[in-house]
Amino acid sequence: MKLNITGIAGSLRSGSYNRAALRAAAELCPEEVEIQMVNLRDIPSYNEDRESNPPESVGELKRAIRACDAVLFATPEYNYSIPGVLKNAIDWASRPYGDSAWDDKPAAIMGASIGPIGTARAQYHLRQILSYLNMYAINKPEVLIANAAEKFDEQGHLIDQDTRDYIEALVMALVSWTERLKKAELITY
Amino acid sequence: MKLNITGIAGSLRSGSYNRAALRAAAELCPEEVEIQMVNLRDIPSYNEDRESNPPESVGELKRAIRACDAVLFATPEYNYSIPGVLKNAIDWASRPYGDSAWDDKPAAIMGASIGPIGTARAQYHLRQILSYLNMYAINKPEVLIANAAEKFDEQGHLIDQDTRDYIEALVMALVSWTERLKKAELITY
Amino acid sequence: MKLNITGIAGSLRSGSYNRAALRAAAELCPEEVEIQMVNLRDIPSYNEDRESNPPESVGELKRAIRACDAVLFATPEYNYSIPGVLKNAIDWASRPYGDSAWDDKPAAIMGASIGPIGTARAQYHLRQILSYLNMYAINKPEVLIANAAEKFDEQGHLIDQDTRDYIEALVMALVSWTERLKKAELITY
Amino acid sequence: MKLNITGIAGSLRSGSYNRAALRAAAELCPEEVEIQMVNLRDIPSYNEDRESNPPESVGELKRAIRACDAVLFATPEYNYSIPGVLKNAIDWASRPYGDSAWDDKPAAIMGASIGPIGTARAQYHLRQILSYLNMYAINKPEVLIANAAEKFDEQGHLIDQDTRDYIEALVMALVSWTERLKKAELITY
Repeated sequence: MKLNITGIAGSLRSGSYNRAALRAAAELCPEEVEIQMVNLRDIPSYNEDRESNPPESVGELKRAIRACDAVLFATPEYNYSIPGVLKNAIDWASRPYGDSAWDDKPAAIMGASIGPIGTARAQYHLRQILSYLNMYAINKPEVLIANAAEKFDEQGHLIDQDTRDYIEALVMALVSWTERLKKAELITY
Repeated sequence: MKLNITGIAGSLRSGSYNRAALRAAAELCPEEVEIQMVNLRDIPSYNEDRESNPPESVGELKRAIRACDAVLFATPEYNYSIPGVLKNAIDWASRPYGDSAWDDKPAAIMGASIGPIGTARAQYHLRQILSYLNMYAINKPEVLIANAAEKFDEQGHLIDQDTRDYIEALVMALVSWTERLKKAELITY
Repeated sequence: MKLNITGIAGSLRSGSYNRAALRAAAELCPEEVEIQMVNLRDIPSYNEDRESNPPESVGELKRAIRACDAVLFATPEYNYSIPGVLKNAIDWASRPYGDSAWDDKPAAIMGASIGPIGTARAQYHLRQILSYLNMYAINKPEVLIANAAEKFDEQGHLIDQDTRDYIEALVMALVSWTERLKKAELITY
Repeated sequence: MKLNITGIAGSLRSGSYNRAALRAAAELCPEEVEIQMVNLRDIPSYNEDRESNPPESVGELKRAIRACDAVLFATPEYNYSIPGVLKNAIDWASRPYGDSAWDDKPAAIMGASIGPIGTARAQYHLRQILSYLNMYAINKPEVLIANAAEKFDEQGHLIDQDTRDYIEALVMALVSWTERLKKAELITY
C-alpha cells in the first residue's frame, strides 16, 4: 500500500535541525512511503476575521493535509512549548469550525533541540493539541534529538546512527499505525 | 462481538460521583458490552522495593486490566490533576519494567466534579500518562460532568439526560474504537 | 506607588472578547494603576535567522514589556492551547538568548471563550511557558470567562457583574503581588 | 535569618535517588538554613470520607509543612508524571477544603531519574499542581538529574560535582526567594 505522509517542521530557520530530521525521515522510509514537507513560511498570523477569505498559503496547507495519509511533526522547543509558528499553522488549518483539515489523521511527533532535553516538554503540549484536533498520535518510540549540533553535519545531514535508527523506527511505527487504522474504518454508531 | 471494559474510578469516597458515572455507563452500554468496575481501595502505596513481591490486590488489578478489551477512566480533579490514588494504581499496574498491564489498551476518559470545570485540567494530565503507558485514548466526545451534585440524585443515580447522552456517546465511541483496533492487529515491522 | 501594567490579548479578531476583557480590567483598576494594551497585529512569524535584525514591531513590543511593572495576559483557547499568535509574540520577545524582555516580570492570566470551559486548558500551557521565561504568575483568582457571548454587549462592554468582580480581584491581586516583589528586590547569592 | 525548609521526596524506595538528592541539598545549604525531610511511608490512600478524622501521619505531615518557611520537592518521574505516592500526600495535606497546609508557601522542584530526561515531564505536572495549592515555585535553575545511577555512589552519596553545584544553586535561589517573600508580606486589598 502506497502511503503519503506530510512532514511539518516547526522552525523557519534555513538551517533548521527539525527540517533536517524530516529530510532524514524521507530518506529512511521504505520505498512505498513518501514524505512530503510543507513550508510554513508564507502562513500569516491567524485572524478569525479572515476565516471566510483565507490566504492562498492556508488553502495549500489544508489541501496537503487533507490529501495525505498521516502527518509527521518535527518540533523545536521554544520556551517549554511548541513554536508559535507551528501553533499558528495548526490553528489556521483547524478552521473554520467544522472544516478542520486535521480530523482523524494518524500522526507522529519528533523533535530536535540544541540542549540536552530534546523537546520533551514541547512534545506533550503538541500531544494535547492533537487530541483536540482528533488526530491519533502514536506513543512509541519517543524521538528526542538532544544536542542536535553534534548529530547533523554542516550540510544538515543526519550523521548520528542511533538517531537515524530512532527516526526509522518512528516512521515504521507510523506506517504500521496508519495501515492499521486504514484497514478498519471507524464505524460510528 | 462481545467486549469487556474495565471501569476505573479515581475516588474512594463511598458516594463518589465518578463511580456513579461508571455505573451509569454500565447501564447505558449495549447488551454485548460489559463494564466491570475495579476498586482501588486495597492498593497500597507503590514502593519499588516491593515490586518483586507485590500485594495480592495489585495482582488482581493487573489481571483485570489484562483480561479486558478496553479501559474507561472516571477521574475527579484534585489540585488541578488526577488523584494520587488513581496515579498510584496506574503506577503499580505499570510495573515491573516490561510487565505493564496497560500496554496497547484502548481507553476513554470522563470525569465529574462538584465545581464548574468538570475535570478539564485533570483529564489532560491523565492523557499524558496514558501516552507513556502506550494506551490509545479516544479524543471525542470530551465528557466533563460539571456541577455534579445537581446531576445525580441522592442514591447516586444519574438523572441529567444530557449527561446520560454524553456518557452513552463516549461508551459507543470507545466500543467503535476498540473494534477498529481489534479488527486490524498492529503489524510491527 | 504608580504601577504600569502591559495588557496582551491573544486574539487579533476586531471584536475579540479577550481584548474586551483587558479593556474592562483597565476600567476597573485603581487610579494609580495604568493598563496599556499592546497589539500583536504587526508581529511577523518568528525566524531565528532574523534575530540579529528584528522587525520594528518586535522592538516596540520588547520596549513596552521592559518598561512595565507587570504583564496581564488575556488568552483565548485554540485547540486546547494558547493561540499561535500569542506564542509567536512570546517567542520573539524572549530572543535572542540572553536578551529576553520577560525576565522576572510579575504576571497574571485570564481568558475568555465562547464555550463553557473558559480557557482552562490554555491557561496551564501559558503557565508552563511563563515558567521558562522566569515570570512569576499569581495563582489566584483563576479567571475563566466562559460563554463569553452572554457576558459582553455588542460594543464589547463587559456587562456581567460577577465577571467584573473576578477581573477586579485579579487586577488587585496582581497589584499586590507586584508591590510585594518590588518592595524586596531579589538578593542573588 | 534562620530558615526551615521541608524536603519531600516522591519515592518510598529505600535507596531512592530523590531522597539522596535531598540529603545532598541538606549538606550543601548554608548554616542558617535547615532542611528536614518528611517521610510519606505511613500516609494511607486519600479518602474524602476520612477527612474529618484523618490518620495521625497526615496530621504530622500538615504540621511539618505549616511550620516550615519553604518546601523543596524531589520527584521521580513515573509514567510521564509525578508518582501517585507524592500526589496522594499532596492531596491529603490540601484538605479539608479551606484547611490546606500548602497555601502561600515558597517552593522549589528537582528530580532524579535513571533515564536521560531527568524528570522534565513530571516537574511540569507538579508545577500545575502547585499553582492550585497557591504555592510559589521558583523557576530557575531547573534541576534535572539524568542518569542518576552514575551520579550517586552505592551509599547514596552525590558524587557528581556539576549536580552538586546545581542543587546548591537551587537551594540558594529558594532561600533568596523565601526571604524576598517574607520581607514584604502580601497586602490583600
